[in-house]
Amino acid sequence: MTLIKEGDEIYLVLDHRRTYKVKVEQDKQFHTHKGFIELGKLIDQPYGIVVTSSLGVSFYVLKPLIRDRVLKTDRRTQVLYPKDISYILLQLGIGPGSSVVEAGTGSGALTMALANVVRPDGKVYSYDISERHQKTAAKNIERSGLMPYVDLDILDITEGIPHEDVDAIILDMATPWLVIEHAWKALAGSGVFMSFSPTIEQVIKVTEELGNHPFIEIETVELMLREITVAPNKTRPKTQMIGHSGYLTSARKVTRLLE
Amino acid sequence: MTLIKEGDEIYLVLDHRRTYKVKVEQDKQFHTHKGFIELGKLIDQPYGIVVTSSLGVSFYVLKPLIRDRVLKTDRRTQVLYPKDISYILLQLGIGPGSSVVEAGTGSGALTMALANVVRPDGKVYSYDISERHQKTAAKNIERSGLMPYVDLDILDITEGIPHEDVDAIILDMATPWLVIEHAWKALAGSGVFMSFSPTIEQVIKVTEELGNHPFIEIETVELMLREITVAPNKTRPKTQMIGHSGYLTSARKVTRLLE
Amino acid sequence: MTLIKEGDEIYLVLDHRRTYKVKVEQDKQFHTHKGFIELGKLIDQPYGIVVTSSLGVSFYVLKPLIRDRVLKTDRRTQVLYPKDISYILLQLGIGPGSSVVEAGTGSGALTMALANVVRPDGKVYSYDISERHQKTAAKNIERSGLMPYVDLDILDITEGIPHEDVDAIILDMATPWLVIEHAWKALAGSGVFMSFSPTIEQVIKVTEELGNHPFIEIETVELMLREITVAPNKTRPKTQMIGHSGYLTSARKVTRLLE
Amino acid sequence: MTLIKEGDEIYLVLDHRRTYKVKVEQDKQFHTHKGFIELGKLIDQPYGIVVTSSLGVSFYVLKPLIRDRVLKTDRRTQVLYPKDISYILLQLGIGPGSSVVEAGTGSGALTMALANVVRPDGKVYSYDISERHQKTAAKNIERSGLMPYVDLDILDITEGIPHEDVDAIILDMATPWLVIEHAWKALAGSGVFMSFSPTIEQVIKVTEELGNHPFIEIETVELMLREITVAPNKTRPKTQMIGHSGYLTSARKVTRLLE
Repeated sequence: MTLIKEGDEIYLVLDHRRTYKVKVEQDKQFHTHKGFIELGKLIDQPYGIVVTSSLGVSFYVLKPLIRDRVLKTDRRTQVLYPKDISYILLQLGIGPGSSVVEAGTGSGALTMALANVVRPDGKVYSYDISERHQKTAAKNIERSGLMPYVDLDILDITEGIPHEDVDAIILDMATPWLVIEHAWKALAGSGVFMSFSPTIEQVIKVTEELGNHPFIEIETVELMLREITVAPNKTRPKTQMIGHSGYLTSARKVTRLLE
Repeated sequence: MTLIKEGDEIYLVLDHRRTYKVKVEQDKQFHTHKGFIELGKLIDQPYGIVVTSSLGVSFYVLKPLIRDRVLKTDRRTQVLYPKDISYILLQLGIGPGSSVVEAGTGSGALTMALANVVRPDGKVYSYDISERHQKTAAKNIERSGLMPYVDLDILDITEGIPHEDVDAIILDMATPWLVIEHAWKALAGSGVFMSFSPTIEQVIKVTEELGNHPFIEIETVELMLREITVAPNKTRPKTQMIGHSGYLTSARKVTRLLE
Repeated sequence: MTLIKEGDEIYLVLDHRRTYKVKVEQDKQFHTHKGFIELGKLIDQPYGIVVTSSLGVSFYVLKPLIRDRVLKTDRRTQVLYPKDISYILLQLGIGPGSSVVEAGTGSGALTMALANVVRPDGKVYSYDISERHQKTAAKNIERSGLMPYVDLDILDITEGIPHEDVDAIILDMATPWLVIEHAWKALAGSGVFMSFSPTIEQVIKVTEELGNHPFIEIETVELMLREITVAPNKTRPKTQMIGHSGYLTSARKVTRLLE
Repeated sequence: MTLIKEGDEIYLVLDHRRTYKVKVEQDKQFHTHKGFIELGKLIDQPYGIVVTSSLGVSFYVLKPLIRDRVLKTDRRTQVLYPKDISYILLQLGIGPGSSVVEAGTGSGALTMALANVVRPDGKVYSYDISERHQKTAAKNIERSGLMPYVDLDILDITEGIPHEDVDAIILDMATPWLVIEHAWKALAGSGVFMSFSPTIEQVIKVTEELGNHPFIEIETVELMLREITVAPNKTRPKTQMIGHSGYLTSARKVTRLLE
């Protein structure tokens, strides 16, 4: 049974819409409009317990999962949704020990999801041209405890990727077609290239450029996620839905002819 | 650079529709209608190379990824698609070291995907009531090299789950609502329950039963994947599409009130 | 060429978001925050012209189509979208001269669309249990000029439908399954029954009840509409989308065995 | 009550997959692998009756609706589905008395749907460059009884549209952008232009060209239709689905500035 330790980040849930990421510290209180919670008394308690605020309101104490961090990550710099991140993780073909190049880092949401999969022996090399993005991302990744598996750097990878033999490359940037040649060089043979792009013009350019290099299995998909309300006599898909986040293009590197 | 070793399973690609999973053995030939390939000459070559058959036709040599195994797994016993498997992996909140209970095992496609994520220290406990399914699954998992991270057993988990404090439980079975009580007991506090069901009646019953136990964040989604054809003046979603595989219901366990 | 006449309702378009339905009257001005428009000078002008407000801002003068009226109709009482209304019109199999029963009337949006199709010799019999709905609908239909083809009445059709040999029946009400028996009696042989329901429980009950009566070709569909942004290097489906409005169930009446 | 008359085309339904369009003639038999039906005895019977074949198998006698004709029309030359046709009919803003230009005619499926809406006083001018298409279409339209409301001609409308002041124009052709200028001239002010295109490149070209002419409310949508299986404990969207038929672009003509 996993017990809550001092210094842990926990996820306090009031209801579906109101959840809070909080650091557990002795002699500290977490204040909400529904009263405050004595964080110290959570130490050495199991995750999943229910705690009562000073106003008698119940809060659930959950262990933050990567999916929670992804959803809670600052959205200003990113448009990747869990539906896209999960598909990327599977399609990249990575696992513990894999090496992955990512650009741009954005808010670090995908970086954390990648790091969680490649740990403890793998590494995520994540690049962004924006110093501001990298700072935000660094803070998010630090808090998740996944920084040991991530190398963050400010770099414009349209000018080159400083790695070779990496297992996978994932791009979420404005001009991914400018990186195809560098990506081919950096990938190990049979390695996976992926690119996330909101517009079809980006997809067309990336696909054309992939076709100009030794890549096979070039394909593009998009994912639509529908939330379903399930309740007696009220079961139905929700009225509002995200209609589009982006297209996911993938390919695999092949190399020279065996004589 | 990863080199091909004797005994490796490789993935020979002729084109998008014709791909073959082959075991590399010295002094063995792989025969296709496009000629045969001397498998021995692949040993110590890098993945990603192109090899020519006796009839001069090129084949690509790829390293099988979990996603390839999932797609190539015998489809008779399963309806889970990559879109669903990837979402399950993220939503379960698992990573290296996690413990997961799965039922039913089916063809082992999801089992392999789970094992790939929890290795090297985690474990997938996978149950099925069908001996035939377990045999097929065992063969598939064995070939993927992931068996060290999997415990397969023939068991009807509607009668109980022989574990406690597991991080996650995923069900793909006809009557998941009969397992909710056992799932609650087997999960660690804050652990994730998921169920994949093709019909809405199953979703309604599972959701109702989850509501009768201390679970929070109960939600159901469905994923739709569209493949896009990208080619000059021919860019468009494909005509045929999988309209539905199943609904994914998830929830998290909470426990007693902290006094 | 159709000219604007005094008394016509016109549709003044400033931009995609700001459009106004206005009645043309001599010596009247239409005031907007972008200046006023002298409505009298539009008389005897062709539709489609551009008119300038007192502040020099251009407005387009369009002839209101049924689709515009549907979109502009008070939304408080209805959830039918153009995607649903258009599919209903085709599936009902109606045309000039057809007779249709509708319940409930709601805001009259569908009523107008039905009336536009069955005119000049057909008739829409539209029922609602709410006097308030009927008043709103009457006002909307009156303004569209389609009232000659509509009979509005306050009636609970779960107690019976006062017609026979109608070509089609369309229900948008909470308990459509209570009307199936009456609908069968009111329809002509080979006539079409349709029901629009937001929830799957309604669909299940309606389908079961249709199966208890001599109806064939019982089927249910749902329609998803995606808006696409088309602009240089920005072409993509819109982020926000209506994920669900309702399910459309249809069936056709059959009668006795020919001896 | 509508009675079956000699010469009527009827729609014989064995089950959901096996339906037949048959002309009723005295002293004629319709042969199926389930026995034959004496067509003469149907004369003066009401639509909707059940008739028994010589082998004792029941067939339902339905009156063909436009939607049935659309589905039964030779599919070789067309990709328009009911979901698209119905949306076109509503968006075009047409009704009894409207004039519409269509190109290409294809199999005549949309032509019939248009004719059914504009009759008895309106007209559909339908053009195709293929004599073979026009012949197929003529046969289909003739059989539906809608030919009085249709003018078919072999013509390449990229060279001009021989009409003016038409209410609406709908294009289903390879190069719709070559017709925009002609379409603008042929439309009445405030009239509706629509184009159905399978590829996004077509949509991009059409939209750009519309933007070069006095058109407003330029928009593109796509429709996805999901069929739902409704049966006790088996309710779910169908596995197979049409993922894409085409995009629908629409716009409205505006004219000169009113001084």
